[in-house]
Amino acid sequence: MSTTAEHGPVPRERDRAPKQDRSRATRQRLLEAAVACLAEHGWAGSTVAVVAERAGVSRGAAQHHFPTREDLFTAAVEYVAEERSTALRALFPAGPGDRRAVVAALVDLYTGPLFRAALHLWVAASNEDQLRAPVTELEARVGRETHRIAVELLGADESRPGARETVQGFLDMARGLGLANLLTDDTTRRERVVAQWADLLDTALG
Amino acid sequence: MSTTAEHGPVPRERDRAPKQDRSRATRQRLLEAAVACLAEHGWAGSTVAVVAERAGVSRGAAQHHFPTREDLFTAAVEYVAEERSTALRALFPAGPGDRRAVVAALVDLYTGPLFRAALHLWVAASNEDQLRAPVTELEARVGRETHRIAVELLGADESRPGARETVQGFLDMARGLGLANLLTDDTTRRERVVAQWADLLDTALG
Repeated sequence: MSTTAEHGPVPRERDRAPKQDRSRATRQRLLEAAVACLAEHGWAGSTVAVVAERAGVSRGAAQHHFPTREDLFTAAVEYVAEERSTALRALFPAGPGDRRAVVAALVDLYTGPLFRAALHLWVAASNEDQLRAPVTELEARVGRETHRIAVELLGADESRPGARETVQGFLDMARGLGLANLLTDDTTRRERVVAQWADLLDTALG
Repeated sequence: MSTTAEHGPVPRERDRAPKQDRSRATRQRLLEAAVACLAEHGWAGSTVAVVAERAGVSRGAAQHHFPTREDLFTAAVEYVAEERSTALRALFPAGPGDRRAVVAALVDLYTGPLFRAALHLWVAASNEDQLRAPVTELEARVGRETHRIAVELLGADESRPGARETVQGFLDMARGLGLANLLTDDTTRRERVVAQWADLLDTALG
Protein backbone atom coordinates (compact mmCIF):
# COMPACT_ATOMS: atom_id res chain seq x y z
CA MET A 1 0.00 0.00 0.00
CA SER A 2 1.47 3.33 -1.02
CA THR A 3 1.63 6.42 1.15
CA THR A 4 0.06 8.40 -1.67
CA ALA A 5 -3.01 6.19 -1.62
CA GLU A 6 -3.37 6.63 2.13
CA HIS A 7 -3.02 10.37 2.17
CA GLY A 8 -4.35 11.12 -1.30
CA PRO A 9 -2.35 12.61 -4.16
CA VAL A 10 -1.07 16.17 -3.92
CA PRO A 11 -3.65 18.63 -5.31
CA ARG A 12 -2.05 19.25 -8.71
CA GLU A 13 -1.81 15.53 -9.40
CA ARG A 14 -5.42 15.02 -8.37
CA ASP A 15 -6.51 17.56 -11.00
CA ARG A 16 -4.41 16.07 -13.74
CA ALA A 17 -4.94 12.40 -13.14
CA PRO A 18 -8.69 12.17 -13.88
CA LYS A 19 -8.16 14.22 -17.06
CA GLN A 20 -5.43 11.83 -18.17
CA ASP A 21 -7.68 8.90 -17.31
CA ARG A 22 -10.52 10.35 -19.35
CA SER A 23 -8.19 11.00 -22.24
CA ARG A 24 -6.87 7.45 -22.07
CA ALA A 25 -10.39 6.03 -21.89
CA THR A 26 -11.45 8.08 -24.92
CA ARG A 27 -8.41 6.89 -26.87
CA GLN A 28 -9.19 3.30 -25.95
CA ARG A 29 -12.83 3.61 -26.99
CA LEU A 30 -11.74 5.04 -30.34
CA LEU A 31 -9.24 2.23 -30.91
CA GLU A 32 -11.75 -0.49 -30.10
CA ALA A 33 -14.43 1.13 -32.25
CA ALA A 34 -11.92 1.44 -35.12
CA VAL A 35 -11.09 -2.27 -35.10
CA ALA A 36 -14.76 -3.26 -34.91
CA CYS A 37 -15.59 -0.85 -37.75
CA LEU A 38 -12.78 -2.15 -39.96
CA ALA A 39 -13.76 -5.76 -39.31
CA GLU A 40 -17.42 -5.09 -40.14
CA HIS A 41 -17.27 -2.56 -42.93
CA GLY A 42 -13.80 -2.85 -44.45
CA TRP A 43 -11.45 0.02 -45.25
CA ALA A 44 -13.78 1.80 -47.66
CA GLY A 45 -16.47 2.04 -44.98
CA SER A 46 -14.13 3.07 -42.18
CA THR A 47 -13.61 6.78 -41.67
CA VAL A 48 -12.66 8.79 -38.60
CA ALA A 49 -16.21 10.22 -38.49
CA VAL A 50 -17.85 6.77 -38.48
CA VAL A 51 -15.52 5.55 -35.73
CA ALA A 52 -16.00 8.71 -33.63
CA GLU A 53 -19.76 8.26 -33.78
CA ARG A 54 -19.51 4.59 -32.88
CA ALA A 55 -17.26 5.44 -29.92
CA GLY A 56 -19.56 8.26 -28.78
CA VAL A 57 -16.74 10.79 -29.13
CA SER A 58 -16.85 14.12 -30.97
CA ARG A 59 -15.09 14.24 -34.31
CA GLY A 60 -12.83 16.99 -33.00
CA ALA A 61 -11.76 14.88 -30.03
CA ALA A 62 -11.09 11.95 -32.36
CA GLN A 63 -8.92 14.14 -34.56
CA HIS A 64 -7.09 15.46 -31.51
CA HIS A 65 -6.05 11.87 -30.68
CA PHE A 66 -5.49 10.75 -34.26
CA PRO A 67 -4.73 13.48 -36.80
CA THR A 68 -5.19 11.17 -39.83
CA ARG A 69 -7.29 8.18 -40.78
CA GLU A 70 -4.09 6.14 -41.24
CA ASP A 71 -2.95 7.04 -37.70
CA LEU A 72 -6.24 5.89 -36.21
CA PHE A 73 -6.48 2.54 -37.96
CA THR A 74 -2.85 1.45 -37.69
CA ALA A 75 -2.87 2.43 -33.99
CA ALA A 76 -6.10 0.47 -33.54
CA VAL A 77 -4.76 -2.74 -35.05
CA GLU A 78 -1.57 -2.41 -33.03
CA TYR A 79 -3.45 -1.76 -29.79
CA VAL A 80 -5.74 -4.75 -30.21
CA ALA A 81 -2.83 -6.96 -31.27
CA GLU A 82 -1.04 -6.02 -28.03
CA GLU A 83 -4.18 -6.75 -26.01
CA ARG A 84 -4.41 -10.18 -27.67
CA SER A 85 -0.74 -10.92 -26.99
CA THR A 86 -1.19 -10.06 -23.33
CA ALA A 87 -4.31 -12.23 -23.13
CA LEU A 88 -2.50 -15.09 -24.85
CA ARG A 89 0.42 -14.99 -22.40
CA ALA A 90 -2.08 -14.85 -19.52
CA LEU A 91 -3.63 -18.13 -20.74
CA PHE A 92 -0.31 -19.89 -20.14
CA PRO A 93 1.15 -18.13 -17.11
CA ALA A 94 3.60 -20.95 -16.43
CA GLY A 95 5.29 -20.61 -19.84
CA PRO A 96 5.33 -23.51 -22.34
CA GLY A 97 1.99 -25.29 -22.08
CA ASP A 98 0.31 -28.34 -23.54
CA ARG A 99 1.26 -28.04 -27.20
CA ARG A 100 -2.18 -28.83 -28.58
CA ALA A 101 -3.74 -26.15 -26.37
CA VAL A 102 -1.04 -23.64 -27.37
CA VAL A 103 -1.51 -24.42 -31.08
CA ALA A 104 -5.28 -23.95 -30.75
CA ALA A 105 -4.87 -20.67 -28.85
CA LEU A 106 -2.43 -19.33 -31.44
CA VAL A 107 -4.75 -20.26 -34.32
CA ASP A 108 -7.59 -18.49 -32.46
CA LEU A 109 -5.64 -15.23 -32.84
CA TYR A 110 -6.42 -15.38 -36.55
CA THR A 111 -10.10 -16.15 -36.54
CA GLY A 112 -11.63 -13.20 -34.72
CA PRO A 113 -12.40 -9.56 -35.48
CA LEU A 114 -8.76 -8.51 -34.99
CA PHE A 115 -7.56 -10.67 -37.88
CA ARG A 116 -10.49 -9.54 -39.98
CA ALA A 117 -9.63 -5.89 -39.27
CA ALA A 118 -5.92 -6.45 -39.93
CA LEU A 119 -6.74 -8.22 -43.19
CA HIS A 120 -8.80 -5.27 -44.42
CA LEU A 121 -5.96 -2.95 -43.51
CA TRP A 122 -3.32 -5.11 -45.28
CA VAL A 123 -5.36 -5.45 -48.42
CA ALA A 124 -6.14 -1.72 -48.51
CA ALA A 125 -2.44 -0.97 -47.96
CA SER A 126 -1.53 -2.96 -51.06
CA ASN A 127 -3.38 -0.37 -53.18
CA GLU A 128 -3.09 2.81 -51.09
CA ASP A 129 0.25 4.53 -50.97
CA GLN A 130 -0.43 6.41 -47.71
CA LEU A 131 -1.18 3.16 -45.88
CA ARG A 132 1.58 1.04 -47.31
CA ALA A 133 4.56 2.18 -45.21
CA PRO A 134 2.84 2.31 -41.80
CA VAL A 135 1.01 -0.99 -42.34
CA THR A 136 4.15 -2.77 -43.58
CA GLU A 137 5.99 -1.60 -40.46
CA LEU A 138 3.07 -2.56 -38.22
CA GLU A 139 2.79 -6.01 -39.79
CA ALA A 140 6.51 -6.63 -39.23
CA ARG A 141 6.30 -5.53 -35.58
CA VAL A 142 3.19 -7.57 -34.79
CA GLY A 143 4.61 -10.55 -36.70
CA ARG A 144 7.87 -10.50 -34.69
CA GLU A 145 5.96 -10.30 -31.41
CA THR A 146 3.64 -13.18 -32.38
CA HIS A 147 6.63 -15.27 -33.41
CA ARG A 148 8.30 -14.55 -30.05
CA ILE A 149 5.19 -15.66 -28.14
CA ALA A 150 4.78 -18.77 -30.29
CA VAL A 151 8.39 -19.85 -29.73
CA GLU A 152 8.04 -19.27 -26.00
CA LEU A 153 4.69 -21.02 -25.49
CA LEU A 154 5.53 -23.93 -27.82
CA GLY A 155 8.84 -24.34 -25.98
CA ALA A 156 10.66 -24.38 -29.33
CA ASP A 157 14.45 -24.48 -29.25
CA GLU A 158 15.41 -22.16 -32.09
CA SER A 159 19.04 -23.20 -31.93
CA ARG A 160 17.95 -26.52 -33.48
CA PRO A 161 18.10 -26.46 -37.30
CA GLY A 162 14.64 -26.00 -38.80
CA ALA A 163 12.86 -25.12 -35.54
CA ARG A 164 12.52 -21.44 -36.48
CA GLU A 165 11.04 -22.27 -39.91
CA THR A 166 8.73 -24.88 -38.36
CA VAL A 167 7.22 -22.20 -36.11
CA GLN A 168 7.10 -19.64 -38.94
CA GLY A 169 5.31 -22.10 -41.26
CA PHE A 170 2.84 -22.90 -38.50
CA LEU A 171 2.03 -19.19 -38.05
CA ASP A 172 1.62 -18.89 -41.84
CA MET A 173 -0.80 -21.82 -41.62
CA ALA A 174 -2.71 -20.03 -38.83
CA ARG A 175 -2.97 -16.93 -41.06
CA GLY A 176 -4.25 -19.11 -43.94
CA LEU A 177 -6.82 -20.67 -41.61
CA GLY A 178 -7.97 -17.17 -40.73
CA LEU A 179 -8.45 -16.39 -44.40
CA ALA A 180 -10.43 -19.61 -44.90
CA ASN A 181 -12.78 -18.44 -42.13
CA LEU A 182 -13.51 -15.08 -43.74
CA LEU A 183 -16.64 -15.92 -45.74
CA THR A 184 -17.88 -19.08 -44.07
CA ASP A 185 -17.67 -20.67 -40.64
CA ASP A 186 -14.73 -23.03 -41.13
CA THR A 187 -14.60 -24.22 -37.49
CA THR A 188 -15.19 -27.94 -38.05
CA ARG A 189 -12.57 -28.33 -40.75
CA ARG A 190 -10.16 -26.06 -38.88
CA GLU A 191 -10.37 -28.11 -35.67
CA ARG A 192 -9.39 -31.27 -37.54
CA VAL A 193 -6.49 -29.53 -39.29
CA VAL A 194 -5.31 -28.02 -35.99
CA ALA A 195 -5.46 -31.40 -34.21
CA GLN A 196 -3.41 -33.06 -36.95
CA TRP A 197 -0.81 -30.30 -37.20
CA ALA A 198 -0.48 -30.01 -33.44
CA ASP A 199 0.73 -33.64 -33.50
CA LEU A 200 3.06 -33.01 -36.44
CA LEU A 201 4.47 -29.88 -34.78
CA ASP A 202 4.94 -31.75 -31.51
CA THR A 203 7.03 -34.38 -33.31
CA ALA A 204 8.95 -31.79 -35.33
CA LEU A 205 9.82 -29.63 -32.32
CA GLY A 206 10.89 -32.63 -30.23
CA MET B 1 -5.96 -35.61 -89.83
CA SER B 2 -9.67 -34.95 -90.34
CA THR B 3 -11.49 -34.94 -93.64
CA THR B 4 -12.95 -31.54 -92.76
CA ALA B 5 -9.48 -30.05 -92.42
CA GLU B 6 -8.44 -31.41 -95.82
CA HIS B 7 -11.49 -30.29 -97.73
CA GLY B 8 -12.36 -27.22 -95.66
CA PRO B 9 -15.45 -26.81 -93.48
CA VAL B 10 -18.88 -26.55 -95.09
CA PRO B 11 -19.76 -22.90 -95.82
CA ARG B 12 -22.10 -22.26 -92.88
CA GLU B 13 -19.54 -23.59 -90.40
CA ARG B 14 -16.82 -21.49 -92.00
CA ASP B 15 -18.90 -18.36 -91.38
CA ARG B 16 -19.69 -19.21 -87.82
CA ALA B 17 -16.34 -20.54 -86.60
CA PRO B 18 -14.29 -17.33 -86.90
CA LYS B 19 -17.08 -15.40 -85.21
CA GLN B 20 -17.07 -17.88 -82.31
CA ASP B 21 -13.29 -17.66 -82.15
CA ARG B 22 -13.42 -13.88 -82.02
CA SER B 23 -16.04 -14.02 -79.29
CA ARG B 24 -13.96 -16.49 -77.29
CA ALA B 25 -10.84 -14.36 -77.72
CA THR B 26 -12.72 -11.25 -76.55
CA ARG B 27 -14.02 -13.11 -73.51
CA GLN B 28 -10.52 -14.31 -72.68
CA ARG B 29 -9.03 -10.83 -73.02
CA LEU B 30 -11.71 -9.49 -70.67
CA LEU B 31 -11.05 -12.21 -68.09
CA GLU B 32 -7.31 -11.67 -68.12
CA ALA B 33 -7.70 -7.90 -67.91
CA ALA B 34 -10.14 -8.33 -65.00
CA VAL B 35 -7.68 -10.37 -62.94
CA ALA B 36 -4.82 -7.95 -63.65
CA CYS B 37 -7.05 -5.01 -62.74
CA LEU B 38 -8.22 -6.60 -59.49
CA ALA B 39 -4.65 -7.49 -58.51
CA GLU B 40 -3.39 -3.96 -59.19
CA HIS B 41 -6.26 -1.74 -58.10
CA GLY B 42 -8.37 -3.84 -55.74
CA TRP B 43 -12.15 -4.21 -55.85
CA ALA B 44 -12.92 -0.49 -55.41
CA GLY B 45 -10.85 0.37 -58.50
CA SER B 46 -12.17 -2.48 -60.65
CA THR B 47 -15.22 -1.72 -62.77
CA VAL B 48 -16.45 -3.24 -66.02
CA ALA B 49 -15.57 0.01 -67.83
CA VAL B 50 -11.96 -0.01 -66.58
CA VAL B 51 -11.52 -3.66 -67.57
CA ALA B 52 -13.12 -3.15 -71.01
CA GLU B 53 -10.73 -0.29 -71.73
CA ARG B 54 -7.75 -2.30 -70.58
CA ALA B 55 -8.82 -5.23 -72.78
CA GLY B 56 -9.41 -2.96 -75.79
CA VAL B 57 -13.07 -4.02 -75.94
CA SER B 58 -16.13 -1.76 -76.13
CA ARG B 59 -18.16 -1.43 -72.96
CA GLY B 60 -21.19 -2.83 -74.79
CA ALA B 61 -19.29 -5.92 -75.86
CA ALA B 62 -18.03 -6.40 -72.28
CA GLN B 63 -21.58 -6.18 -70.95
CA HIS B 64 -22.76 -8.64 -73.59
CA HIS B 65 -20.31 -11.20 -72.19
CA PHE B 66 -20.76 -10.27 -68.52
CA PRO B 67 -24.02 -8.58 -67.58
CA THR B 68 -22.83 -7.59 -64.09
CA ARG B 69 -19.58 -6.58 -62.41
CA GLU B 70 -19.91 -9.64 -60.11
CA ASP B 71 -20.21 -11.95 -63.15
CA LEU B 72 -17.08 -10.55 -64.73
CA PHE B 73 -14.83 -10.76 -61.68
CA THR B 74 -15.90 -14.14 -60.36
CA ALA B 75 -15.61 -15.60 -63.89
CA ALA B 76 -12.16 -14.03 -64.19
CA VAL B 77 -10.83 -15.53 -60.96
CA GLU B 78 -12.29 -18.91 -61.89
CA TYR B 79 -10.83 -18.80 -65.41
CA VAL B 80 -7.34 -17.93 -64.21
CA ALA B 81 -7.53 -20.52 -61.43
CA GLU B 82 -8.33 -23.18 -64.05
CA GLU B 83 -5.44 -22.02 -66.22
CA ARG B 84 -3.12 -22.28 -63.21
CA SER B 85 -4.38 -25.78 -62.36
CA THR B 86 -3.75 -26.93 -65.93
CA ALA B 87 -0.26 -25.41 -65.90
CA LEU B 88 0.48 -27.04 -62.54
CA ARG B 89 -0.53 -30.51 -63.75
CA ALA B 90 1.55 -29.94 -66.91
CA LEU B 91 4.64 -29.37 -64.71
CA PHE B 92 4.33 -32.92 -63.38
CA PRO B 93 3.00 -34.91 -66.35
CA ALA B 94 4.03 -38.22 -64.79
CA GLY B 95 1.85 -37.65 -61.70
CA PRO B 96 3.39 -37.57 -58.19
CA GLY B 97 6.72 -35.76 -58.45
CA ASP B 98 9.62 -34.88 -56.20
CA ARG B 99 7.82 -33.67 -53.08
CA ARG B 100 9.95 -30.60 -52.50
CA ALA B 101 9.36 -29.49 -56.11
CA VAL B 102 5.61 -30.14 -55.78
CA VAL B 103 5.42 -28.21 -52.50
CA ALA B 104 7.27 -25.25 -54.07
CA ALA B 105 5.01 -25.29 -57.14
CA LEU B 106 1.86 -25.40 -54.99
CA VAL B 107 3.07 -22.49 -52.84
CA ASP B 108 3.80 -20.54 -56.05
CA LEU B 109 0.06 -20.65 -56.80
CA TYR B 110 -0.44 -18.26 -53.90
CA THR B 111 2.23 -15.67 -54.57
CA GLY B 112 1.27 -14.28 -57.98
CA PRO B 113 -1.37 -11.92 -59.38
CA LEU B 114 -4.09 -14.62 -59.27
CA PHE B 115 -3.89 -14.92 -55.49
CA ARG B 116 -3.73 -11.16 -55.14
CA ALA B 117 -6.85 -10.81 -57.31
CA ALA B 118 -8.67 -13.60 -55.45
CA LEU B 119 -7.75 -12.00 -52.11
CA HIS B 120 -9.26 -8.66 -53.15
CA LEU B 121 -12.40 -10.47 -54.25
CA TRP B 122 -12.67 -12.46 -50.99
CA VAL B 123 -12.17 -9.44 -48.80
CA ALA B 124 -14.66 -7.38 -50.81
CA ALA B 125 -17.15 -10.26 -50.59
CA SER B 126 -16.97 -10.18 -46.81
CA ASN B 127 -18.58 -6.70 -46.89
CA GLU B 128 -20.64 -6.76 -50.10
CA ASP B 129 -23.80 -8.81 -50.12
CA GLN B 130 -23.97 -9.20 -53.91
CA LEU B 131 -20.50 -10.72 -54.02
CA ARG B 132 -20.78 -12.97 -51.01
CA ALA B 133 -22.73 -15.92 -52.44
CA PRO B 134 -20.90 -16.23 -55.79
CA VAL B 135 -17.47 -15.77 -54.23
CA THR B 136 -18.17 -18.27 -51.44
CA GLU B 137 -19.21 -20.83 -54.05
CA LEU B 138 -16.20 -20.01 -56.24
CA GLU B 139 -13.80 -20.31 -53.31
CA ALA B 140 -15.22 -23.73 -52.40
CA ARG B 141 -14.90 -24.97 -56.00
CA VAL B 142 -11.36 -23.69 -56.50
CA GLY B 143 -10.38 -24.98 -53.05
CA ARG B 144 -11.65 -28.49 -53.81
CA GLU B 145 -9.82 -28.58 -57.13
CA THR B 146 -6.56 -27.36 -55.57
CA HIS B 147 -6.89 -29.98 -52.84
CA ARG B 148 -7.42 -32.68 -55.48
CA ILE B 149 -4.29 -31.63 -57.38
CA ALA B 150 -2.24 -31.40 -54.19
CA VAL B 151 -3.25 -34.91 -53.08
CA GLU B 152 -2.45 -36.27 -56.54
CA LEU B 153 0.91 -34.57 -57.02
CA LEU B 154 2.06 -35.18 -53.44
CA GLY B 155 1.07 -38.83 -53.81
CA ALA B 156 -0.88 -38.61 -50.53
CA ASP B 157 -2.90 -41.65 -49.48
CA GLU B 158 -6.07 -40.10 -48.06
CA SER B 159 -7.23 -43.43 -46.66
CA ARG B 160 -4.48 -43.05 -44.02
CA PRO B 161 -5.71 -41.25 -40.87
CA GLY B 162 -4.59 -37.63 -40.83
CA ALA B 163 -3.33 -37.52 -44.43
CA ARG B 164 -6.24 -35.38 -45.59
CA GLU B 165 -5.75 -32.84 -42.78
CA THR B 166 -2.00 -32.82 -43.37
CA VAL B 167 -2.56 -31.73 -46.98
CA GLN B 168 -5.28 -29.24 -45.97
CA GLY B 169 -3.03 -27.63 -43.35
CA PHE B 170 -0.24 -27.38 -45.90
CA LEU B 171 -2.54 -25.56 -48.34
CA ASP B 172 -3.64 -23.24 -45.52
CA MET B 173 0.05 -22.52 -44.96
CA ALA B 174 0.50 -21.77 -48.66
CA ARG B 175 -2.40 -19.30 -48.45
CA GLY B 176 -0.83 -17.68 -45.38
CA LEU B 177 2.49 -17.40 -47.23
CA GLY B 178 0.63 -15.63 -50.03
CA LEU B 179 -0.74 -13.14 -47.54
CA ALA B 180 2.73 -12.55 -46.09
CA ASN B 181 3.91 -11.66 -49.62
CA LEU B 182 1.23 -9.02 -50.17
CA LEU B 183 3.08 -5.91 -48.98
CA THR B 184 6.71 -6.97 -49.14
CA ASP B 185 8.78 -9.42 -51.12
CA ASP B 186 8.87 -12.35 -48.71
CA THR B 187 10.77 -14.70 -51.07
CA THR B 188 13.86 -15.36 -48.93
CA ARG B 189 11.94 -16.23 -45.77
CA ARG B 190 9.34 -18.18 -47.75
CA GLU B 191 11.97 -20.38 -49.40
CA ARG B 192 13.36 -21.41 -46.02
CA VAL B 193 9.87 -22.14 -44.64
CA VAL B 194 8.96 -24.15 -47.75
CA ALA B 195 12.15 -26.22 -47.54
CA GLN B 196 11.48 -27.08 -43.91
CA TRP B 197 7.77 -27.82 -44.40
CA ALA B 198 8.45 -29.95 -47.46
CA ASP B 199 10.52 -32.18 -45.17
CA LEU B 200 7.79 -32.24 -42.49
CA LEU B 201 5.16 -33.10 -45.11
CA ASP B 202 7.36 -35.78 -46.60
CA THR B 203 7.75 -37.44 -43.20
CA ALA B 204 4.06 -37.04 -42.36
CA LEU B 205 2.82 -38.46 -45.66
CA GLY B 206 5.25 -41.38 -45.56
